Amino acid sequence: MPFLADPRPAGGPMSGLERVLVVGTGLIGTSIALALREHGVEVHLADLDPRAARLASELGAGLEWSAQEGAPAADLAVIAVPPQYVAAELLALQRRGAARYYTDVASVKALPLAEAERLGCDLGDYVAGHPLAGRERSGPAAARADLFLGRPWAYCPTDETSPAAVDTLLALIKLCGAEAVRVGAEEHDRAVAVVSHAPHVTAAAVAARLAEAPETALGLAGQGVRDVTRIAAGDPALWTGILSGNALPVANVLEAVAADLAAAAAALREAAEPGRRAEEGADPMGMPWVTALLERGVAGTDRIPGKHGGPASVYTVIQVIIGDRPGELARLFQAAEEAGVNIEDVRLEHAPGLPLGAAELFVQPQAAAALAEALRANGWHLP
Amino acid sequence: MPFLADPRPAGGPMSGLERVLVVGTGLIGTSIALALREHGVEVHLADLDPRAARLASELGAGLEWSAQEGAPAADLAVIAVPPQYVAAELLALQRRGAARYYTDVASVKALPLAEAERLGCDLGDYVAGHPLAGRERSGPAAARADLFLGRPWAYCPTDETSPAAVDTLLALIKLCGAEAVRVGAEEHDRAVAVVSHAPHVTAAAVAARLAEAPETALGLAGQGVRDVTRIAAGDPALWTGILSGNALPVANVLEAVAADLAAAAAALREAAEPGRRAEEGADPMGMPWVTALLERGVAGTDRIPGKHGGPASVYTVIQVIIGDRPGELARLFQAAEEAGVNIEDVRLEHAPGLPLGAAELFVQPQAAAALAEALRANGWHLP
Repeated sequence: MPFLADPRPAGGPMSGLERVLVVGTGLIGTSIALALREHGVEVHLADLDPRAARLASELGAGLEWSAQEGAPAADLAVIAVPPQYVAAELLALQRRGAARYYTDVASVKALPLAEAERLGCDLGDYVAGHPLAGRERSGPAAARADLFLGRPWAYCPTDETSPAAVDTLLALIKLCGAEAVRVGAEEHDRAVAVVSHAPHVTAAAVAARLAEAPETALGLAGQGVRDVTRIAAGDPALWTGILSGNALPVANVLEAVAADLAAAAAALREAAEPGRRAEEGADPMGMPWVTALLERGVAGTDRIPGKHGGPASVYTVIQVIIGDRPGELARLFQAAEEAGVNIEDVRLEHAPGLPLGAAELFVQPQAAAALAEALRANGWHLP
Repeated sequence: MPFLADPRPAGGPMSGLERVLVVGTGLIGTSIALALREHGVEVHLADLDPRAARLASELGAGLEWSAQEGAPAADLAVIAVPPQYVAAELLALQRRGAARYYTDVASVKALPLAEAERLGCDLGDYVAGHPLAGRERSGPAAARADLFLGRPWAYCPTDETSPAAVDTLLALIKLCGAEAVRVGAEEHDRAVAVVSHAPHVTAAAVAARLAEAPETALGLAGQGVRDVTRIAAGDPALWTGILSGNALPVANVLEAVAADLAAAAAALREAAEPGRRAEEGADPMGMPWVTALLERGVAGTDRIPGKHGGPASVYTVIQVIIGDRPGELARLFQAAEEAGVNIEDVRLEHAPGLPLGAAELFVQPQAAAALAEALRANGWHLP
């Protein structure tokens, strides 16, 4: 029976967070509430849609908020609404004195800050924030207390932000088990355009080709196109709001991607021109611009940090043929445990149409030989 | 100790494939050779680089070919060289009578067929083929006998192809455990442009943005951009050759993707124009064109076939918090086995910086409640 010591600090009086108000009980708001509840923080829940707040409450995320005059102010109000509505919500909450400090969780940061200034919000007790966590599913039912464990949580104080407001947000981030990353609002928006918003639109544009492709093409689809298009399954309305709030940085990245793809297409057309292959000294694969783009791509993937936040680790992959029935993986991992080897990651590759698949076990290079030997000794088939 | 009945048919005399010549001992050629060896087929190996043929031979893929006059012809020669060189290799092999029938495995099909006709190859004993399998790694050392298990294997007979040549290729496909898919060469090329070649270039163009992004941006990278860019880590030289051989169909798809991205960028710029938000009746998220693109993307992902070749199955996902140490997964799968539940797929989500992660178990919906209950009863933490 596994028992895991909880690495997260306790909330409550010592953390400066006794009472938190969460406004907007979607995936992110409800997940924050659940994480806070695990630390004994008193959480109040509000949503434009009272059914969403009730559902979150029923899931154990806290109490439905009753916005009565004279109710004690929260230590922190977390505004978890779409980017376009953050500033208006902040103003309304500040006017009724709902909390001592305020933060938000929107995926864009410059827009809410500019709007808050324009509306005349108090910018001293507000810190813009953005937990880098999400799922393809949305809504309170998809929420999880551990959604933010080990994830970056960007926060963007300005010259006007009070240190106490920052400390209060940092306490929240700590209770959620996330890692605080201080960053300017504009820099944040440019960063997420590159690593999240533009990749989402690009995945959608690739997936859009599948929508119009003949059945034959889908029958030839492999793992590559599945990976490229996975995030394109996300909610279009939600994503339109995010993209709208980060319009110019996303447009910049999309234009660069579009330009690269158009240039690649032009190079391909040129290479296909009749007679080009017969030209004196023409390299039959001579598309140096395309090769250079592919090389830039390799360089980009090399920069993505790996597991545990460090540089991408290089694991050794051991493949094992497994049957598609209960217990195969249990026996496999049992054998690995008996060999004293930790499996860092696992990928199942099912063979379409057959009751067989291959498990790819990612292990530390120095453990690979011992594991392979142990598995073979136990009768596993390693191709 | 697991023992799996081999679902693949036996080779040798009964299959019409007693002796096969594999020309080009890279990933695909060597994997085919390994699969044939498992069925007792006599395999001969040739490569422009004799060290590659020797390595493949040492890996158990067959014997190095000695192209002496009077050596018995193979039943089938598998030409596993880059697309540009297939036709010339076919001509050379036919001239020396190396085999009764010929096939190739190139990722494009119209080019080798056109070149073979132009060079005056015998088109009666040649069937163009393409196994839809691959890996990010290349070369004989990455080869696996099970690479083609359950994968589609396209083949493109023409009016001139003899039925006996087709039957011989079908025997090879069967021995490799793959599923034969008959398709015209042009249709094949358009299909792989959509599901493989253009997605590869697009992934590279997204990854290229990461190559030039500031460190802050990489620090905010999540799972989404990792998935979108994974295949961009593939070998640029190999991929330039593939793209060059399918230039026009790939250019068509890339232009459509580029046009969608440019139009999305334009819509985003327009939405960001000063004053637009204040316009009478303007929808603050009013980017119907962008929403429509995202919706086309969702429709595209919905069409990708799932496990076992059928329509995408809908599994229920159960999340379990696990520690990062040997045995956690073994105990987890053990508990699932004891509950009699088959785990269809598993995804590990490690929390960067923490010795904790979440395992997502994909199970049949009707088994989910029982598994969740069994896991909780065993002390697992399900968020």
